[in-house]
Amino acid sequence: MFNAAQCASTLEAIRARTPLVHNITNYVVMNNTANALLAIGASPAMVHANEEVEEFAALASALVINIGTLSPAWVKAMDAAACVANVKGIPWVMDPVGAGATHFRTEVATALARLRPACIRGNASEIMVLAGSTALKPHGVDSAHGSDAAIAAARRLAAATGAVVGVTGVVDYVTDGSQLIGLRNGHPLMARVTGLGCTATALVGAALAVEKDRLAATAAGLSFLAIAGEIAAEKSSGPGSLQVHLLDALHQLDAATIVSRLKVVS
Amino acid sequence: MFNAAQCASTLEAIRARTPLVHNITNYVVMNNTANALLAIGASPAMVHANEEVEEFAALASALVINIGTLSPAWVKAMDAAACVANVKGIPWVMDPVGAGATHFRTEVATALARLRPACIRGNASEIMVLAGSTALKPHGVDSAHGSDAAIAAARRLAAATGAVVGVTGVVDYVTDGSQLIGLRNGHPLMARVTGLGCTATALVGAALAVEKDRLAATAAGLSFLAIAGEIAAEKSSGPGSLQVHLLDALHQLDAATIVSRLKVVS
Amino acid sequence: MFNAAQCASTLEAIRARTPLVHNITNYVVMNNTANALLAIGASPAMVHANEEVEEFAALASALVINIGTLSPAWVKAMDAAACVANVKGIPWVMDPVGAGATHFRTEVATALARLRPACIRGNASEIMVLAGSTALKPHGVDSAHGSDAAIAAARRLAAATGAVVGVTGVVDYVTDGSQLIGLRNGHPLMARVTGLGCTATALVGAALAVEKDRLAATAAGLSFLAIAGEIAAEKSSGPGSLQVHLLDALHQLDAATIVSRLKVVS
Repeated sequence: MFNAAQCASTLEAIRARTPLVHNITNYVVMNNTANALLAIGASPAMVHANEEVEEFAALASALVINIGTLSPAWVKAMDAAACVANVKGIPWVMDPVGAGATHFRTEVATALARLRPACIRGNASEIMVLAGSTALKPHGVDSAHGSDAAIAAARRLAAATGAVVGVTGVVDYVTDGSQLIGLRNGHPLMARVTGLGCTATALVGAALAVEKDRLAATAAGLSFLAIAGEIAAEKSSGPGSLQVHLLDALHQLDAATIVSRLKVVS
Repeated sequence: MFNAAQCASTLEAIRARTPLVHNITNYVVMNNTANALLAIGASPAMVHANEEVEEFAALASALVINIGTLSPAWVKAMDAAACVANVKGIPWVMDPVGAGATHFRTEVATALARLRPACIRGNASEIMVLAGSTALKPHGVDSAHGSDAAIAAARRLAAATGAVVGVTGVVDYVTDGSQLIGLRNGHPLMARVTGLGCTATALVGAALAVEKDRLAATAAGLSFLAIAGEIAAEKSSGPGSLQVHLLDALHQLDAATIVSRLKVVS
Repeated sequence: MFNAAQCASTLEAIRARTPLVHNITNYVVMNNTANALLAIGASPAMVHANEEVEEFAALASALVINIGTLSPAWVKAMDAAACVANVKGIPWVMDPVGAGATHFRTEVATALARLRPACIRGNASEIMVLAGSTALKPHGVDSAHGSDAAIAAARRLAAATGAVVGVTGVVDYVTDGSQLIGLRNGHPLMARVTGLGCTATALVGAALAVEKDRLAATAAGLSFLAIAGEIAAEKSSGPGSLQVHLLDALHQLDAATIVSRLKVVS
């Protein structure tokens, strides 16, 4: 099962290989996502034009698709990039931001989920909508639900899509449909910074680029952010300083910190 | 009239209700706007695709339309969202960024101003252009004018559109065409951070979501930013640290701080 | 040749004139670019819609074109703005982000380079691709090469296009095809923050707006960032705090700091 040694070795592999992580993500978080990937040791690129997205996807070690700010041309690029990744055996991770909020968003996320992502990372509402549990109207794009319902939905979604599913909240859960990992790092102040869920997804992308065990890679990516976030929160007076300390903490993250901080509940 | 108690109660209502604030805003400020809304206690979402913007607008408690980085598809989404908001009785606020700089920008802002926004927030140049005072070519997108001319233009624009008009500068003014509130908080360093005017507009959106008196809501939204900005500036060595401290100060803002800091001149 | 006095006088001219710098740049860096331009004393605007880009380009004192996140509509706007700038005698600077990574990107950068930019600023890979040295597949969008090959490519590109060429890396080089300036400021941590190359290009734009000697303007723009970056790095614990201190350092930059810090090797 997932443990601190495995999490640390994934971090060290990212630092050693500097994997190119191709992101098709939303306007709100592009800058933070790129900076988080640089801070963890990966090489980020944001490329979405239909004229180049397939050529670029073939060069990357992982692909991150995030539907936060959609438009039809971007959906086309997402589909095309995911197909190239599948043909080339490049792992890709999907973030169904706001699934359930509008029909368009739910349809796009549902269609992407069928294209064999290596991982799907969302909050409880989004995962429950994709798992067909309910047609929720989340309150904005962040929402909380009972963890039992979220875990059941995550297992169902994993079984239906073949993806490892990460559902993040007070406790983060990762499942491949049968195995389940619980992760208890993080801090409540992280919810007051926009796009940290998107950052988690991107860090999962970096982990998938270097670690073949998708369950371990997903747990590692989520743990990088949660551990860095709790270190940052201890030094912060609010969400502004949290963002700054978070990037510093990702940059400084090392095996010893992971060993002393990681809280796995299996 | 507007006072510290009313400003504080608007803040407390935002914290208690976490209103969903729908933003169609520019690429430059999306991240900061979302973070400022989270820091004040609201729930932000950025949604602009024509495929979903009407459905989403109907879910929100307030709508923010900012024309900072325009394109025709986005203008269509802005119109559609404003119409839904009007039908549903959802207040919306308009930020005419750069009105007067190009004909396209002036036309889009003028057309939006006719769609019955609850509030229009701009700098002196933008408000004077919308009020038909002059066909200005502002120096970039920030500009300063004599406050008398700006106040007269704001009153005229309010009377013509039915909107409460906020015109921000060294002193911020809010008017419904007859009543006038002057607000003397803020700090000159705030002008060296991009998009704080856009942040002010978004915070007015959050205030309009919980406060029916539009004059008071507009004054409260502008005051949240100006007070947090002056607190931040006192701790900052430049515009980089100002941004960080500003989000922390919005997060920490409370009734006591408002009572001790707010400078209203009626 | 370029020296500290000339660099300082360019800074003072920016502060005195507050030039309007028109940017057509990528989504990832828009906010940082605008903030860096404000911190150095310029007035930034981000305008890309085909409906207004020509009208706006004619108002600006310099134009910055950055191909970081391309799409066909933006390429059209870039071409149109560059043509207006040329007709009006407004200097423009081009940043060929990721040239060589995809055919589309290389073609767009190559076509723009033929439209007589005053300056082209890129990393070694990008400049070598534009100079026709090789059809590289850069590792992401940042890449390092031997400085001799990069200098030779920069000279060749300058001769072919008439542009001053800036190639940034551990040492930054600036050439007009015959003269060569080497600049040894900066800090390795700067490479862990996304878009600082784009910021360098934008600051070159601000310098070109006030300084007719394009070689000196390009060297000044690159030096502003490199000096501010090394001051910031000395105070930082990682890339998060570096970004904050960088904007503060740009804001505080003055002639005395330039004189004491600037390392020119001719």
